[in-house]
Amino acid sequence: MQRIVYVNGEYIPELEAKVSVFDRGFLFSDAVYEVTAVLDGKLIDNAGHLARLERSCAELELSLPVNAEQLTEIQRELIKLNGLKEGGIYLQLSRGNAGDRDFAFPTDTPPTLVLFTQSRQLIDCPKAAKGMKVISIPDIRWKRRDIKTVGLLAPCLAKQAALAAGASDAWLIEDGFVTEGSSNNAYIVTAEGKVITRPLSSDILHGITRASLLKLAEDANIEVEERNFTIEEAYAAKEAFVSSATTFVWPVTMIDGKPIGDGEPGPIAQKLREIYIEVAQAAAI
Amino acid sequence: MQRIVYVNGEYIPELEAKVSVFDRGFLFSDAVYEVTAVLDGKLIDNAGHLARLERSCAELELSLPVNAEQLTEIQRELIKLNGLKEGGIYLQLSRGNAGDRDFAFPTDTPPTLVLFTQSRQLIDCPKAAKGMKVISIPDIRWKRRDIKTVGLLAPCLAKQAALAAGASDAWLIEDGFVTEGSSNNAYIVTAEGKVITRPLSSDILHGITRASLLKLAEDANIEVEERNFTIEEAYAAKEAFVSSATTFVWPVTMIDGKPIGDGEPGPIAQKLREIYIEVAQAAAI
Repeated sequence: MQRIVYVNGEYIPELEAKVSVFDRGFLFSDAVYEVTAVLDGKLIDNAGHLARLERSCAELELSLPVNAEQLTEIQRELIKLNGLKEGGIYLQLSRGNAGDRDFAFPTDTPPTLVLFTQSRQLIDCPKAAKGMKVISIPDIRWKRRDIKTVGLLAPCLAKQAALAAGASDAWLIEDGFVTEGSSNNAYIVTAEGKVITRPLSSDILHGITRASLLKLAEDANIEVEERNFTIEEAYAAKEAFVSSATTFVWPVTMIDGKPIGDGEPGPIAQKLREIYIEVAQAAAI
Repeated sequence: MQRIVYVNGEYIPELEAKVSVFDRGFLFSDAVYEVTAVLDGKLIDNAGHLARLERSCAELELSLPVNAEQLTEIQRELIKLNGLKEGGIYLQLSRGNAGDRDFAFPTDTPPTLVLFTQSRQLIDCPKAAKGMKVISIPDIRWKRRDIKTVGLLAPCLAKQAALAAGASDAWLIEDGFVTEGSSNNAYIVTAEGKVITRPLSSDILHGITRASLLKLAEDANIEVEERNFTIEEAYAAKEAFVSSATTFVWPVTMIDGKPIGDGEPGPIAQKLREIYIEVAQAAAI
């Protein structure tokens, strides 16, 4: 059975899910996206994702053709139609098909809205249990990383470089400091047990999972400091980990071939993962 | 009559020209492109564009499914089918539709090749005759501007900012120096009549028209110096202009509200435009 995909108001088999070659998402990467995790067929942290979608749209003068409530209905319908238990729902909004190619924004062109499900094991997941290796590479992305656009070629290249080096992901370095992972926020834990992560700015994505984690850490009396950290600090850290919508928390056990701490997933990363999943599941809609 | 568009081996009416929502050009801006000008139904500087396409592909480990000769045949067929006399042919190659969304490059996924024509007056063109106004804004693009990818949201935003300010285009500033225009290379002319343009690096697109112009300038005894220049130097310049595949040369008569020289198109820009068109037309294929 083919997966059912949503394209501009229609639920259609995935092989028929298409957009015009003149769509600005295809020609200009003039599009934003969100990914919401699904556990037990329910949406995780979805209000945060839809709020960030609205923010991305506002930054780019993109109009959402449906409101958050309607988007949630579409997400739920896709979960139902595809029998999705665990995984994610991808949502992309582009500035639509203006019928030709011109850099300037078209007027009165309806945006293109696409959503699809991805079935994936999020809870029982080898990288969560065993941790992962990352490499560090220069951050060559554009300067508005706070806007979640589909201009993702640099992260694709980063991921590809990591795989070529026998690692799972890359941490991106700018002016000597770690910005974030290729598709996740990056954290280290100091010898004193303090969690360090880069503060919000246009240098990094404002992770929804990151925001939830920082709140949960506070509740669990885990100290957090939002400040820039260098890759050398990361090498010497007691623990390292990443967070994102569909990884939740994954421990990082090796960076650039150097084991972090004792080279095993750290207790703070594991605890934050447990707490996040517990709280997120309880609040899932 | 609908325009005929090329998509993966087929010549189809533009309204039917579509790609999968899973195409990596749409999801990741994992695609490169070229635009070749057409005059009198013939291709201008096409060998240079196809050579740059091969370079972009090599930088991204993208495989071209057809060679330069076959691409030229497709371009010519589109010119014929659409009765194109003057304008451009757009060509885009993406890493194709892997059937799902994953940052890592897929293996054995055929790329997506799309070409379409755009009818436009290139010779008898108001901005060429009267010049244009530009504004300067920060260059927020990624660091590999030498690869001609469809990650063009920053240039779209730049163009949009220019239009909002009553100008036609934006010059991008990085570390105090002009990199280039939003979709063209930037030049100034000093009081001594010397043409200044930024040297090639990953900071700018390696313009095909730029390369031809620099050669033609040398032949015409117009001195050229490839070096960085500041926006203040541009304000004080005798002339300013841009070059690209479909503008050839357009004079810039005002930057940030300041008239350049006497505020009229300059003689060197006009001469270079004339020479370029003459030589390019004679060499068109």
